[in-house]
Amino acid sequence: MKTFINPEEWTTLLQRSRLGTEDLEPVVQSILKDIQQDGDVAVRRYTSKFDRVQLDDFSVSKAEIQAAIEAVSSPLKRAIQQAKNNIEVFHKSQKEAVQYVETMDGITCWRKSVGIDRVGLYIPAGTAPLFSTVLMLGIPAKLAGCREIVLCSPPNQKGQIHPAILYAASLVGCTKIFKVGGVQAIGAMAYGTACIPKVYKIFGPGNQYITCAKQLILKEGLAIDMPAGPSELLVWADECANPAFVAADLLSQAEHGTDSQVILVSSSSLVVENVQAAIKQQIARLPRKDMAQIALNNSRAIVLKDEQTIVQFINEYAPEHLILNIKNAEKVADQVINAGSVFLGNFTPESLGDYASGTNHTLPTNGFACNYSGLSLDSFVKKITFQKATKRGLKNIGWVVETMAAAEALEAHKNAISIRLKSMNDE
Amino acid sequence: MKTFINPEEWTTLLQRSRLGTEDLEPVVQSILKDIQQDGDVAVRRYTSKFDRVQLDDFSVSKAEIQAAIEAVSSPLKRAIQQAKNNIEVFHKSQKEAVQYVETMDGITCWRKSVGIDRVGLYIPAGTAPLFSTVLMLGIPAKLAGCREIVLCSPPNQKGQIHPAILYAASLVGCTKIFKVGGVQAIGAMAYGTACIPKVYKIFGPGNQYITCAKQLILKEGLAIDMPAGPSELLVWADECANPAFVAADLLSQAEHGTDSQVILVSSSSLVVENVQAAIKQQIARLPRKDMAQIALNNSRAIVLKDEQTIVQFINEYAPEHLILNIKNAEKVADQVINAGSVFLGNFTPESLGDYASGTNHTLPTNGFACNYSGLSLDSFVKKITFQKATKRGLKNIGWVVETMAAAEALEAHKNAISIRLKSMNDE
Repeated sequence: MKTFINPEEWTTLLQRSRLGTEDLEPVVQSILKDIQQDGDVAVRRYTSKFDRVQLDDFSVSKAEIQAAIEAVSSPLKRAIQQAKNNIEVFHKSQKEAVQYVETMDGITCWRKSVGIDRVGLYIPAGTAPLFSTVLMLGIPAKLAGCREIVLCSPPNQKGQIHPAILYAASLVGCTKIFKVGGVQAIGAMAYGTACIPKVYKIFGPGNQYITCAKQLILKEGLAIDMPAGPSELLVWADECANPAFVAADLLSQAEHGTDSQVILVSSSSLVVENVQAAIKQQIARLPRKDMAQIALNNSRAIVLKDEQTIVQFINEYAPEHLILNIKNAEKVADQVINAGSVFLGNFTPESLGDYASGTNHTLPTNGFACNYSGLSLDSFVKKITFQKATKRGLKNIGWVVETMAAAEALEAHKNAISIRLKSMNDE
Repeated sequence: MKTFINPEEWTTLLQRSRLGTEDLEPVVQSILKDIQQDGDVAVRRYTSKFDRVQLDDFSVSKAEIQAAIEAVSSPLKRAIQQAKNNIEVFHKSQKEAVQYVETMDGITCWRKSVGIDRVGLYIPAGTAPLFSTVLMLGIPAKLAGCREIVLCSPPNQKGQIHPAILYAASLVGCTKIFKVGGVQAIGAMAYGTACIPKVYKIFGPGNQYITCAKQLILKEGLAIDMPAGPSELLVWADECANPAFVAADLLSQAEHGTDSQVILVSSSSLVVENVQAAIKQQIARLPRKDMAQIALNNSRAIVLKDEQTIVQFINEYAPEHLILNIKNAEKVADQVINAGSVFLGNFTPESLGDYASGTNHTLPTNGFACNYSGLSLDSFVKKITFQKATKRGLKNIGWVVETMAAAEALEAHKNAISIRLKSMNDE
């Protein structure tokens, strides 16, 4: 972790690694095209090629789910159930009640949240089974009232999905589960095949091929959760922070992958030194220490002169995760305008939000916290507006619309009002 | 308007015209690249080329705004002010109060809406000054707390923007207004120039070049309001609907452009015949009758057998605007799951929502109502989540996170909890 003391120029410190998936586009586009044209036959072909398993039927059967439920240990089941409960409680609080608003006498407007009818969740395989992501996508989908919740995840060479993923998927109420991964999964959910339903919006993390496939289907009118990038953590620590805790938090981010972005900011050089020392102590004991070390080599410890400067730096960097391990965390939290999720104080590690506190762990990376929110119930609904005018209401508002429509040279818009007003006068 | 009686096969009736902007991509991409590289110089060059005016300074001065305010007639000003008031009332109702949710004893989570710091609004010129769109974009941007609200609109050959646009922009509180249009405007707001600030999200309608430019900058990490398509209206009319009103509503949609999508659905052939007759009567008197006639030639009147079938058809078509001019409109409204904005009864023409009732007129077209919402306050904010655990809270939740992190093979995530629990036990 390289230390920068009172840097004058922030530009390089604020930089992210370039993502660019343009080079992959031709490859990914051609897989998508194959899936669109040949459906399940193409899915089967790519599954055999990339996942090295020949599958006749991609769908996960009830028997497989039952076996998975039995295979998951009781303590893990209890933990997943408690996490589910907390995530449900927090996401339920995001439900919006219908409010009828009378904007003028006789003109009533309201809006209603309706679950996106069919959604697709993608869960990568990789080094560990990401059942926590199943909770983070599936729980709000169910609460939102999405009718069809399709989950795709790559099979291993035995043609299986990890039991913990299947357990979580069945717990949250996924309606269909398929042993399909990679670009072929995104294509199958985007276009639909005989076996896999077409969905309207696709959620979930993945490698650069998945990211590229999601960008391409976005262009074709499907919705996606948000643009992707490597995971990030910025910790702001002061003298009140326990250096060992800060080190543990930074390492938990670093173990995500070699491209993880880890930043420590403080107004005290001593705090930075203490944290660096604690990192050295702790890293040796980690199973993923090699990966963490590479991420740390690209990471930065930055000493800035005062609170105001640090707040400014954070808002320009727009971190995915922000830990405010400082004395007046609550006060400073009010000044944060660009961040995905914020953790306050010595006893709120990022791990809480990653798994179980209740907030969603799918968050904007790569500076996208400037223009995107993390996932929430909102991500799984559309909000439809409604309105009703009474005769009296139309009389009150008529002149406004007639005047504006005429000024925009839209006479038929004006006439839709005038013809009604005239009929009322004739009554 | 072609009539279909009891069609067996809906596929063609549900179809939209293809949008495809792929052919434009090379041209649009090269303009964007020029703007990124040469900034204001390139903006000036393209303004001269496309808008046929040489501008040294793109920014609209205070004197120009003052002159515009004087140039707009008093009745129009009053109408715009009343519309502004209604739009404000409805969009204010969308503000979300911060809720502190204790998901477990000692674990508190909440989220806060923060205005996107810098947003860009694009207002096309075209056949009429779209000051109503200035209201629909600017009012929620201001309510959301966006600090910088940049508006770009193409200048005429005298180097001016229509006074009604400038009046509306100043009324809603746009912070910077520029006489720049086309792809060059999108590029300038996406990358920033010496004169025009870079923004995080771009809103507003436009032709296929604007649509293509917005798609391209979306790929580069900027956010946009939503994908674009031609405007649409579906009216469901029964015997209680006044055929002249229905005809006026369909014509108001048809006058938008030759590519407007206009659909009439009913379970009664007689209703359809009466509406068709009323259209013939009314169209002759419209100034934009030629355009409306072309749109009507591509439009459809569809007779379906019963209420249930019509609801199903509507939800599959997912219209941008839906008028339920039927007896039991309220009851049916509850069954609508895919639509942008819904208008109930004989006295609620679409024009109300286009201008002044309070709802937003920027809505999902082209079937995007299946996966996108219309604009609202939500579109101008990011929602940041926060959490704080007490020592007691961490003790309660610790085992959940430790168990899940271990099962995902993320030991450092587990350790961020364990190291804290251990320090508490040691106290």
